[in-house]
Formats: sequence, structure tokens, C-alpha cells
Amino acid sequence: MAKYIIGVDYGTLSGRAIIADVETGRELPKVCDYNYPHAVMKTELPGGKKLPVDYALQDPQDYLEALSNIVPDVMKENGVSPEDVIAIGVDFTACSVLPVDKEGTPLCFLGKYREDPMAYVQLWQHHGAQEEANEITRLAEERGEKFLARLGGKVSSESLIPRIWKIAKDDPELYHDMDEYLEAGDWIVEQLTGSRYRNSCDAGCKSLWHAQEGFPSKDFFRALDPRLENVVEEKLHSPIRPIGFKAGEITEKGARLTGLKVGTAVSVAIADGHASVAGTLEEAEEGQMVMIMGTSCAHFLVGTEDKIVPGCFSVAKDSVLPGFYGYECGQSGFGDHYAWFVNHCVPEEYSQMARAKGMDIHQYLTEKCAALNPGESGLLALDWWNGNRSVLNDSDLTGLIVGMRLTTRPEEVYRALIEATAYGTRKIVDTFEESGVPVEKIYATGGISQKNPVAMQIFADITNRPIRIAASKNSGALGSAVLASLAAGSERGGYDRIEDATRVMANLTDIEYRPNPQHVKLYDQLYKNYVELHDYFGRGQSNVMKDLKRIQKESILKKAEWNLTEHLAM
Amino acid sequence: MAKYIIGVDYGTLSGRAIIADVETGRELPKVCDYNYPHAVMKTELPGGKKLPVDYALQDPQDYLEALSNIVPDVMKENGVSPEDVIAIGVDFTACSVLPVDKEGTPLCFLGKYREDPMAYVQLWQHHGAQEEANEITRLAEERGEKFLARLGGKVSSESLIPRIWKIAKDDPELYHDMDEYLEAGDWIVEQLTGSRYRNSCDAGCKSLWHAQEGFPSKDFFRALDPRLENVVEEKLHSPIRPIGFKAGEITEKGARLTGLKVGTAVSVAIADGHASVAGTLEEAEEGQMVMIMGTSCAHFLVGTEDKIVPGCFSVAKDSVLPGFYGYECGQSGFGDHYAWFVNHCVPEEYSQMARAKGMDIHQYLTEKCAALNPGESGLLALDWWNGNRSVLNDSDLTGLIVGMRLTTRPEEVYRALIEATAYGTRKIVDTFEESGVPVEKIYATGGISQKNPVAMQIFADITNRPIRIAASKNSGALGSAVLASLAAGSERGGYDRIEDATRVMANLTDIEYRPNPQHVKLYDQLYKNYVELHDYFGRGQSNVMKDLKRIQKESILKKAEWNLTEHLAM
Repeated sequence: MAKYIIGVDYGTLSGRAIIADVETGRELPKVCDYNYPHAVMKTELPGGKKLPVDYALQDPQDYLEALSNIVPDVMKENGVSPEDVIAIGVDFTACSVLPVDKEGTPLCFLGKYREDPMAYVQLWQHHGAQEEANEITRLAEERGEKFLARLGGKVSSESLIPRIWKIAKDDPELYHDMDEYLEAGDWIVEQLTGSRYRNSCDAGCKSLWHAQEGFPSKDFFRALDPRLENVVEEKLHSPIRPIGFKAGEITEKGARLTGLKVGTAVSVAIADGHASVAGTLEEAEEGQMVMIMGTSCAHFLVGTEDKIVPGCFSVAKDSVLPGFYGYECGQSGFGDHYAWFVNHCVPEEYSQMARAKGMDIHQYLTEKCAALNPGESGLLALDWWNGNRSVLNDSDLTGLIVGMRLTTRPEEVYRALIEATAYGTRKIVDTFEESGVPVEKIYATGGISQKNPVAMQIFADITNRPIRIAASKNSGALGSAVLASLAAGSERGGYDRIEDATRVMANLTDIEYRPNPQHVKLYDQLYKNYVELHDYFGRGQSNVMKDLKRIQKESILKKAEWNLTEHLAM
Repeated sequence: MAKYIIGVDYGTLSGRAIIADVETGRELPKVCDYNYPHAVMKTELPGGKKLPVDYALQDPQDYLEALSNIVPDVMKENGVSPEDVIAIGVDFTACSVLPVDKEGTPLCFLGKYREDPMAYVQLWQHHGAQEEANEITRLAEERGEKFLARLGGKVSSESLIPRIWKIAKDDPELYHDMDEYLEAGDWIVEQLTGSRYRNSCDAGCKSLWHAQEGFPSKDFFRALDPRLENVVEEKLHSPIRPIGFKAGEITEKGARLTGLKVGTAVSVAIADGHASVAGTLEEAEEGQMVMIMGTSCAHFLVGTEDKIVPGCFSVAKDSVLPGFYGYECGQSGFGDHYAWFVNHCVPEEYSQMARAKGMDIHQYLTEKCAALNPGESGLLALDWWNGNRSVLNDSDLTGLIVGMRLTTRPEEVYRALIEATAYGTRKIVDTFEESGVPVEKIYATGGISQKNPVAMQIFADITNRPIRIAASKNSGALGSAVLASLAAGSERGGYDRIEDATRVMANLTDIEYRPNPQHVKLYDQLYKNYVELHDYFGRGQSNVMKDLKRIQKESILKKAEWNLTEHLAM
């Protein structure tokens, strides 16, 4: 008799549930989605209260509503009985945090706080605490705090500590009234199990916590703001447990909410991107990298040691697979980058030809650029159309293309943009290896990995690594299910070791792109040039990119001034 | 009674005649063109003999045929009687050279040489003597010959000396039989007047001659090849006369050919680009620059001193205006550069919008980019899509664009390309000034100057110079007529001084683009960045552009190899 696990993936606009077969990893065909009724609140609260710019809030009631729909539905639609579900796992967009009372009730549920923005969930897109983030970075730099290097030298306004600090300063009553400031994923798990834990992934990547060193010292917090001296004991006090840990079992309340049986195992939560790792790779071991290739690209690497890697935005124990260190890097322009080209730079003639052939324009361009050899276009680009996240971590950098000639054709530019993103990934891979963290094999998931074989071959050739393509379109939800199989354990039909779980449950296609040694040689030469330009423009030798941005701001300001002067003169 | 002068412009594919009113400079409405029956011979001679690659020959009979059509026609169509034509002037694409006998008969007219390619006119496009040109450059460098600096450090395969050397080596009988190796323009003037002169413009710019120093020394020619020791006395012996000099008068033979009256004044010939100067500027004085804005761009500057200007490809006395030094620079990608963008980078949506508005796409883009302020796009480009002629003189350089973002729009890129060509011109202007040759005012002629006001304002803002727009669409032919007015002299109704001739005969529109001081300030900042990239990529600090070209060659070769291997394996 087949046993099943449910994986729930809380995204930015909806929650999604899948069911995976524990013994094969096979995902059942029906996937259930539920859009949050309040979506992302950027301008006002449900009661009408206006929000400042940079705010992005959610109502946690929406998460419960999603859960109570998608879990029963996904069982019903796939014909799975709750008796056959041995566990459930949850991942959540990170960092999404909310203040709760002792019973786990979100403070925004209380009449007193219905109109208080800070009582709601602050979504990952919320940048209300940017100043606080900058100040934490500054102080940590000044004091030489070790945690800073593990975060790529910068505390993000998306993370938990700046946000709770802002509440302590601006909303002291709310700060006082909250029992804990919790990750939304941990809160959902509490709703299911009645037990509250903080998960190692969010704690390590978003809350300045370290498996050996714990949170930053009281001394640091006091120096930051005396009100924060005891923030850990007072507001972040629940035990931190590694991903895959069994948080508890479905309670009566949890059963009413989900239709699951009381006693079903529930694992601690995990961040959504990180969850993809357990849902994608086959061998849970050092050197396996998972790339999530979407509009942007995230790189998660499995390591066995705690190393500082320049430009890596987090390294934390138990953040991608239990027992391992997880490293996270990323490229901010990826699919967006190709889409920009397709939307703004493709001539009418090509659009017409593509239609005549019944192809979409990406396919048409891909077909044309497949005929090109590495280096044949004579073009080289820097993939910074949307800044650089790793390894330079500088959003003020911009895109560049060199080698243009009167004979340059659109497919050559398109290929150069694809190659640029692959060079960017290689730069990340090289930076890992230079820092002592090996990268052996790459797994790719996300739309581009399945739709663009030319791009994937280019990535294999440029990184000189085999690239295995994931089959799942829901790698986050599947990863949550894989981790939940550990919470169930072998006695309930799950697994005791992550290595066993991933080996069986990995949902991969048969496609593996292997580097073509002849292409590798050509790309090695081109990559040297990429590195030259990367360092020249990205490491401060040239100030051209920032100067252009500065002049741009001045230009726009001047234009407004001139228009005003003209207007007043009329 | 109005007096007229005929200007004849020998282009690459046709000859063209105009008539100008001497007292007003007004061009009469009808312009007569005649296409050369043999056009450019690149693959075979009229008799069927195959030509090597890089050859581009013409049949001088075509020039006579053109002359005997366009001169009578232009008089007839404009209702001008030969009695009222006081002079004729001729300009010719340079360097176009042919071997002639003592009587001025082209050797290709003789039965013996009908099938000898070297007996024909070698057009400016002819690159058969590239090796000879390289060797002359090498030897001149080794010996520190002064003439080299005046030619931007490189002897072109388009110039006369490498070509006659190749004849001396490869075709000794032809070399022996020729009385002189002549510029085609000088040959036409001989046909009209019976007198043979070499003109100062072609001699100075294309034959290594200098007004004070003469040709290279016998010693240099002997070192190059003993056969060339006496090449000047033997094959280049006719007197050299400044442009505007009266070569003679129409003979009986000339009158039969053209319908002009015997005794009509004929000036010595001039190169076609150089001729545009006299046809465009108003004040014949130091600091006046003429830009011929076509698919590429030529810059001619009037100076009073003999200076060495880096990257300038010729400086010669009496080459643009008699009595002045003429400097020539150029940009190899210009209109071609914008056309490339329009043909390959404009999205379907824009093409459709332009059609809906009844505009051509250049107009549509121009309208959109007119709304942008300097610097507003955040983009900066290097204008090297077709290499750099001045000031780097390096055809292996390629185009670059930086500052690209996901928000970058086509009109921003288009504007950046226009700005890039204007920065290129400013770099030329700055190089002149740094070398002690002042640039006060710019005159622009050619299609873009009349069609693209946005581009012209950008040029005025970036160069911080006023730009006056020419009215004539035939500035070469008009310039030939202006110079011929000096050959006629005041006693025949012409002029004695070039200053008087240009002041009266300049054919300019009322349009003058004046720098906008606010734009100038913004562009000054952007130009600093242009100069940084210009020097970084262009002066050897970075080898990226050349490396990409090298890898491109390797890639294409490898691809052919792999295809062959695959083919053989089948």
C-alpha cells in the first residue's frame, strides 16, 4: 500500500500543495493552489489604514484559509485518503515574520492591533526597516562581528532583526505585547501541531543565528539599542530545530483545519528556495549545487564545512539539508534578462518568421543561436542588467555588451546574454571553489532549465560541470515533503536519513547536459575576458557604471527643474 | 548677365555635373548623372580575364563617356549656353590611378594591354597592394621617415606608391611602357586641356608628397626597391600645382568632348571628399571644420600650420583650400551605425507604431529619443561598430554599450549610438586642439545633417561648437566649381581669392545648431566616461576586443574542422 506525504509551498501570492509517493518520489498529478484573498498589502490594511511606501504586508488569516482549502483538495483530487498520508511539510517565502502572543495568536487578529501595520506579517518584499538594516551592518562592521561575513557583509532589510528592532523603537506597546516574533512558516507548524519551534534554515539565514555561536551577543544587541539587550530570551525564545526535525503531530485543531488525521507527523518549516534543494538533488552530499532558474536565479550549494565565501549571501547549518551546511548565492537578472531582449530588441522580421514557423520568439532565437559556435559571435556581455547579487553584491552595477559590429545579428546578442548569465554562474562556482567549498555537479530546476536546451548546454560548457535537469515543477513543495519524510521516520514508512530520502524521492528527468570538451576550451578563453571586465567594472577600477547612474539622476532632476522654470515663465 | 561654372564630381559608380551661378553660388536645379557602363570591375575585365580578390578596377573610357553626356546635358537642361560658362572643375574619388603614355593615352586602351588588369584604373576600393603598403610603412618606421606621421603612421593600400611599386615588381613591361602613373582626376583635366599636372591634394594625401619636402627621398625608394630609385623623375614627373590653379583651357578636343567653348578655364583636379570643403564653408579661414555625414563620416579641417595630429590620416598643403593646410580625419561607422540598429534591433511594436503614424522608423525613434535629456538613459556607447579610424586608427576595435538595465528601451539605445558618434567626433576635435590646430566652427553636409535635427543638436551639445548645415546635396561638385572660379579669375568673372569665392558661393541653409549650455555640462561629465573607455579599450590597457576577434577566428576554424571530421566519419 502506497504511503504519501503532503508538501505545502507558501508563495508570495498563493499557497500550493502537492502529494508525493514516499516509496518512489512520484508526484501525484493534481496540484492545488489557493490565492490569498488579501494578496500583498502595499497601500492599505483591510480596514483602510494607509501604509507607507516600501511596506509589503500579509494577513496570516489568508494562510489558514489557503491551508484549509488546498490540503483537503489535494487529497480528494488525487484520491488519497488521510489514512495514507504519513506526514506534511511546509515551506514559506522568507523572510515573512509576524508577532504572536503566548498562544500563538497573531497580534493582528486582536481588535487592539487590527489597524497596526506592524502587527501583520512583513513579507520578504517589505523594506520598511532599511535604515535599521544599514545600522546593524555598520555596527557589526565596526565591531568585527563574525556573523556579517556569513551574510556576504551586509544585513538585509528583508531579515528579521532589523524588523523587530524597528518595532521596538516605533511600536513599543506591540513589542511589549508580543510573546515572540515568528517566521510565518514556524507559525503555520504551530497551528498544526500546537508546538512552537524556530527552524534552523530561517534562523540561520534570516535571523543572524549560527548553529555553534547562537544569536549575536547581548553586548552587540545592547550596543545597537538597550531595548534589544534581551531580545533573544524575550522575543526569539523558542527552541531552534534543524529542518527535517519532527515538530510534532497533527492536533485536533490541525485535523479540523486540514482534514489530516490526528497524529500525522509534521516537520519544522523551511524557507521556500532552500526547500527546493531536497526536492531536486539525488545524492545528499557535498558539492551538489541546485540552481533555481526563473526570472532571477538562486544557487544553493551543499557543503560539509563552515566557510566564508565572498558575495555568498548566507551560509548556515541545516539550512538546505539536515547535517550539511547550505550556501546561497544568486543572480538578479536571469530569465528577466532574456525576456528584456525578446521584448525590446527583436526586429519585426524575426517576429514574423517565428509566427510563420509557428514558434514562439524564444524558440526561434534559440534555434538560430544553436547554430553558433562558442565565440563565433565575437560578443561578450556582463550579466548585470539588474545589478549583481553574487559575488559582487552591488545593485548599482549595470549591463554591458562588447564586440558589436555592423554584422552583429540578434541571435548573436541573444546568445551573448545567455552566455553572460552562465559566466556569472561560473564566477559563483569559481568563488566557491577558491573559498574551499567544492562544486561537483549542478542540478537545475525552474522554467528555463526545462525549456531551453541550448542555454543548458551553454551552462554545462561554461561551468565545465554536468547539469542534471529536475522533473518537478514544484521543487519547493516536493522538498518540504522529502524533509517531512524524515519527520515521519522509517517506523511510519518514511526515512531516517536524508541520503535515503533524496535518493528515492528525487524527481529528475533523464536529461543530463555534459560539457563538450572542445567548447570548454573556447569558453575558458572567453571567460578570462569576462573576468577582466567583471573586475574592471565591478571591483572599483572603473567608476563608469556608477557615474552613469549618478549623471542619470542629475539629468532627471535637471529636466524637472527646466520644465518647471519653463512652466513658471509661461 | 549671369556667369556659370560647371562642377563635375566623379564618384564610385557614376559621374555627376552641376552648374553654379558664380555671383550667388546658387546651384541650378538640374543635376546630371551618368552611370559608368563597366561600373566597378571586381571579378573580370571587359574581355573576360578573371581578377584576383581585393581588386577593384575601372575603365577610363567610362569617364570620358560620362563627361560627354553630363556636361552637354547639364547645360541643356538648365538652359545655359556654353558662352556663359566661364570654367569647369573636376573632383574624383581618391585614390584612383592609371598608367598613361606620353600622349596621355591610358595603357589599357592599347591592344597590348587590354587584358592586363594593372593597365586599368585602380579604384580607391582596390586593395591589391596591401603587402606593399605594409612594407612601406614598416621601412618608413624603421627609418623614421617624417611623411609617416602626416599619414597617421600608416601608408594605406589605397594610395599611389604601393600600387606603382607592385606594378614595378609584377608587371615590369607595363612599368617600363608607362610615361606616368596618374590620378584619374588629373588625367581627365589633361583630356580637357592638353596639359598635364598633378594636383596638390592627391599628391599630398595619397602620394607621400609634401609641399616643402617633396616626395620621399631617392634613398628611401632605393632602400624599398632599387627599381623605384628614380620613380619620381620617371613616373611621377609632371608638375604639381595647388587646387584652384588654372591647368589650362578647353582645347578643340575638350570642346568636342564636352560642348564647352574652346578657351573655357579648367582648374586642376581635387579628391572628392576634399572638394566638399570649398563647397560647404563660408569663411575660408583657420578653424573651420567640414563634416561629411554619410554611412561613414569624414572630417576636414582648415589650418594655417603644418602640425602632426595623432590619428589624422593626412595633413597636406593646398588639399582643401589653396593656401591652407587641410587635415582629414574620419569615423568609419556613422550612418551605417544607426542603420544597423534600425535594421536589427527595433521591435515589431515600434515598426507597427511608426507605420500607424506614417513615419519611417528613423523618424519614429528620433521623435522618441528627442524627449530624453542628456544622460537620462544611463547608457554610454563606444562608436566602434566598424572599427575606429580616428584617432586610434584601429580597425580591430569593436562596439560597446554599457549601462543596460531591464528598463532600457530601444530609443535609449538609439540615442546612445548617436551620442557615441558625437563623442567620437569630439575626441577628434579635442585631439586637433591638443595638437595645436584650433577647431572653431563645424559645417555639416550629407544626408544625416539635413534629415536628423536631434542628432545635429546632440553633435552641437557634445562638441560644444555651433554647427551650420549645408544646403547643397552635391557639395563635392559645388566645391569643384568654387575652385574653378579661381582658375577663371576675376578677369573672366570668377574670383582671385578663395575667401571671396567661398563667401559668395557657399550654399548653406539658415540652420545653425547652437550648443545648449545646460546640455553641454551634462555631456561634459558623460564624455569623461567615454574617454575612460576609449583609452581603456582602445589604447591597449585592455585586450578584450582583440581577444574576442582572435577567439572568433579560432572558433570559426574549429567549427569547420569539426564539421569536416563529422563528415569524414560518416
